[in-house]
Amino acid sequence: MSGKESESLESLLERGLQDLELDEAKRIIYGRSWTKIKHSCDVDKIAADLSIDVQGYTVGARIEQTRSPRIVRIGAIQNAIVRKTTDGVDDQRNALHDRVGKIIKAAADLGVNVICMQEAWTMPFAFCTREKLPWTEFAESAENGPTTRFLQKLALKHNMVIVSPILERDDVTGTIWNTAVIIDNHGAVLGKHRKNHIPRVGDFNESTYYYEGNTGHPVFQTEFGRIAVNICYGRHHPLNWLMFGLNGAEIVFNPSATVSGLSEHLWGVEARNAAIANHYFTCAINRVGAESFPNEFTSGDGKPAHKDFGWFYGSSYVTAPDGCRTPGLSRVKDGLLVAELDLNMCQQVQDTWGFKMTQRLPLYANKLKEASQLNYKPQRIGRNQTNDRETTDE
Amino acid sequence: MSGKESESLESLLERGLQDLELDEAKRIIYGRSWTKIKHSCDVDKIAADLSIDVQGYTVGARIEQTRSPRIVRIGAIQNAIVRKTTDGVDDQRNALHDRVGKIIKAAADLGVNVICMQEAWTMPFAFCTREKLPWTEFAESAENGPTTRFLQKLALKHNMVIVSPILERDDVTGTIWNTAVIIDNHGAVLGKHRKNHIPRVGDFNESTYYYEGNTGHPVFQTEFGRIAVNICYGRHHPLNWLMFGLNGAEIVFNPSATVSGLSEHLWGVEARNAAIANHYFTCAINRVGAESFPNEFTSGDGKPAHKDFGWFYGSSYVTAPDGCRTPGLSRVKDGLLVAELDLNMCQQVQDTWGFKMTQRLPLYANKLKEASQLNYKPQRIGRNQTNDRETTDE
Repeated sequence: MSGKESESLESLLERGLQDLELDEAKRIIYGRSWTKIKHSCDVDKIAADLSIDVQGYTVGARIEQTRSPRIVRIGAIQNAIVRKTTDGVDDQRNALHDRVGKIIKAAADLGVNVICMQEAWTMPFAFCTREKLPWTEFAESAENGPTTRFLQKLALKHNMVIVSPILERDDVTGTIWNTAVIIDNHGAVLGKHRKNHIPRVGDFNESTYYYEGNTGHPVFQTEFGRIAVNICYGRHHPLNWLMFGLNGAEIVFNPSATVSGLSEHLWGVEARNAAIANHYFTCAINRVGAESFPNEFTSGDGKPAHKDFGWFYGSSYVTAPDGCRTPGLSRVKDGLLVAELDLNMCQQVQDTWGFKMTQRLPLYANKLKEASQLNYKPQRIGRNQTNDRETTDE
Repeated sequence: MSGKESESLESLLERGLQDLELDEAKRIIYGRSWTKIKHSCDVDKIAADLSIDVQGYTVGARIEQTRSPRIVRIGAIQNAIVRKTTDGVDDQRNALHDRVGKIIKAAADLGVNVICMQEAWTMPFAFCTREKLPWTEFAESAENGPTTRFLQKLALKHNMVIVSPILERDDVTGTIWNTAVIIDNHGAVLGKHRKNHIPRVGDFNESTYYYEGNTGHPVFQTEFGRIAVNICYGRHHPLNWLMFGLNGAEIVFNPSATVSGLSEHLWGVEARNAAIANHYFTCAINRVGAESFPNEFTSGDGKPAHKDFGWFYGSSYVTAPDGCRTPGLSRVKDGLLVAELDLNMCQQVQDTWGFKMTQRLPLYANKLKEASQLNYKPQRIGRNQTNDRETTDE
């Protein structure tokens, strides 16, 4: 299928437009241009050896008198599954450990401090099947599962914070969750976050596997900044993004699994809007390629049963608090995106645009409470009606 | 200045890319393509006579068994000021009445049912000056001012709902507000909405002129659908958009005034994200051209005093609830954008994506209330800390 898929929006623009016109199109689409990182190691060799798209960009902030720059390199890994979905569960997972482990090593060589993989990275995105076995066997303990143990060693070895989105089986209750495990750069499990908003859309039958997360909106204080994780479908919910911001996040990762046709025209909008609205960096990560399953399934769209999920279009990207964004990774290849950030930009943009000052939080706390009531009367004005809900300020 | 400004992103893409590559770039950027409206009258003549960019698009919804399609044509007018800012207040306003009145007539000829102009459309956007007189003399009564009276006649004549964003002087208190007046298709003032979020950014010193709006989040029930108005800087605030959605809006207009350099890379993101997140149509409208003022002013950016505001880049556009959007109007010319919508799409997309179902409103009502307290303790997890704020579900 990848033969029919275009490489990326960026490659289309760069083939078609030249010089000033290319610059102008990029200015309108992406904003201020990020600078390519000049790495000391041979990036082309890394890319060729692993057969991945490697891109690295840096965006600066202004110099302040009383704070030093807080430079952090974050990494995003996007990848296809390695083995067939008919292979054994352990074989599939081990192959992904091996593949992604090598990309994490490459990220370490490129100076990455905090890395995040795509949603449920240790397995195919099998929820389209609505089958339980064998897919539920990919679920593992967030604290002591094989994936966490595997990554703890890498985190310690590379002095890297690793955000690991997995299918979790709760150690106590045995229930399944869609969870991101945060492993700090000393190899310790700092904590976990469970996906807050669960889709019931087309092939994304995830609500039949796990429930809305019960871990709130934690922000993890790491040695490389305050990070949070908005898992996949949570990117459609501005309130989810907002709470991570109110809890002080400086970087919010959005590990995802989403396919062409359904969401590709939304992909560049939502995580980017969140960075703008909340004065933090966002990093949106999508898996790559096609996944085919042994038994046919239907998609709730009236079409015949089939075995293919669709095209996971990669296109992972990072947005700065001022809304300027990196190009996207490939739509068709595994990839590693490295972004060098100065976290001081969060406060600088907050002071410039001031949305946290002007957002009128107490007003909306009241409004949302009213709107949550079963007897909520929406503020509607029609002919021969007066506005009986004129509000006073908070 | 317009000589140096590019015409539009769309013109760049169409000059540089061909056929399948152009289609693919548009698919990724804009989503499903809108169809050009085939008008029965001579659109080219209208555009030439008025020297404006006229564009018209339609987007369909699925046919339902129990509801008929609800087809509505909305219009967006973007324009430069007509007279110099040194001319008399009445002369400047009358010239704008005359110019925009002609474009409203053109919109009527093109079958528009609901039209909206840009923010503070009867005046230059003089708030950069921080001077009061003569600019405050543009303020007028929402209910009985010259602009409302002028538009009431046009609304009745053309059977058109008109959304008129003006500088309002309160009839009772004499205070000034940034207000949108909604005039129904019978020429009656249906109501008004005052801008909820006021900028304090660069040249947008609006907080020195008027206060945060006290009219809540009204949705106006018209014969052509339920409409609301999110004025300019409110587009940066997802909670503002959310409340219009919770009150049942099907179309939300975003009359704006914003300049190149500051916001152009955000322009395609925010109103579009709102349409996606809230399952309604949005229509973002920006003014056009440069505005020069008699006395110099500074912009809070360390640069020398100057008399020019910057380039208002037009680029008005409409987004459907499924996230697909129209091309933008010109960056350099006055324009009229006509969009034919089937309002049934709002509920269809809501049932498909389901964000109102999955948004967990009671949870966030509680969270926002907590976060509004002065003693709020954000949910942070660091080394040797446990997560003491594990939440239960709403």
